[in-house]
Amino acid sequence: MSSRWLNEVKWDEQGLVPAIAQDAKTGEVLMFAWMNREALEKTAQLGQAVYWSRSRRKLWHKGEESGHFQKVVELRTDCDNDVILLKIEQVGGIACHTGRRSCFFNKLEDGHWKDVEPVLKDPKEIYK
Amino acid sequence: MSSRWLNEVKWDEQGLVPAIAQDAKTGEVLMFAWMNREALEKTAQLGQAVYWSRSRRKLWHKGEESGHFQKVVELRTDCDNDVILLKIEQVGGIACHTGRRSCFFNKLEDGHWKDVEPVLKDPKEIYK
Repeated sequence: MSSRWLNEVKWDEQGLVPAIAQDAKTGEVLMFAWMNREALEKTAQLGQAVYWSRSRRKLWHKGEESGHFQKVVELRTDCDNDVILLKIEQVGGIACHTGRRSCFFNKLEDGHWKDVEPVLKDPKEIYK
Repeated sequence: MSSRWLNEVKWDEQGLVPAIAQDAKTGEVLMFAWMNREALEKTAQLGQAVYWSRSRRKLWHKGEESGHFQKVVELRTDCDNDVILLKIEQVGGIACHTGRRSCFFNKLEDGHWKDVEPVLKDPKEIYK
């Protein structure tokens, strides 16, 4: 496969782009992470989400520890070619390291962030 | 309203957080932008999306030129408190400056980014 599509992505000064993972069926936004060129290339090759962990400074094949892989249904980029949207199937139904379906479980209500999503599995059971 | 919820957001070294705007009804991801503290505060106060334009280095009340305001239905943050998800109602049905519904109109197909969403309105008509 030609890598022209990778060249067309506008990587930031750190060589990264934001990546949004969305449930392909329900449309739910599940998580947000970052990708470098290698992560995006591997994502396309594998058909599973691979991110760049800024804290660990290494490639992060989502699910490698938890088993909660993200199968890529579709890859999109935006009008500026500087953000990636992944439409995915979330293996195990849990995207968040807290054991929730989505990372976006804090809702602003009356001036407070309120946790509105249930923990589906104890993180201790996920990361043994 | 107390500003504790604003203090709980983890702003990056430039005082910004990524912000994802999603159609509250359809779940479609419409655009991606950035917010500083003032932008997020104004978003909550106004009930309309206000971003920080990194290129223009100023607050950007989405729709101020196009009329395509974004009415906020719900604000969320993620497990790390460092990303904002806005569930919105898109006034005019067009979020993208190209005249498309969503900014994420480029789909990866056979190793090429392909424009798969129609232009609903000529940008020249939007930005007079």
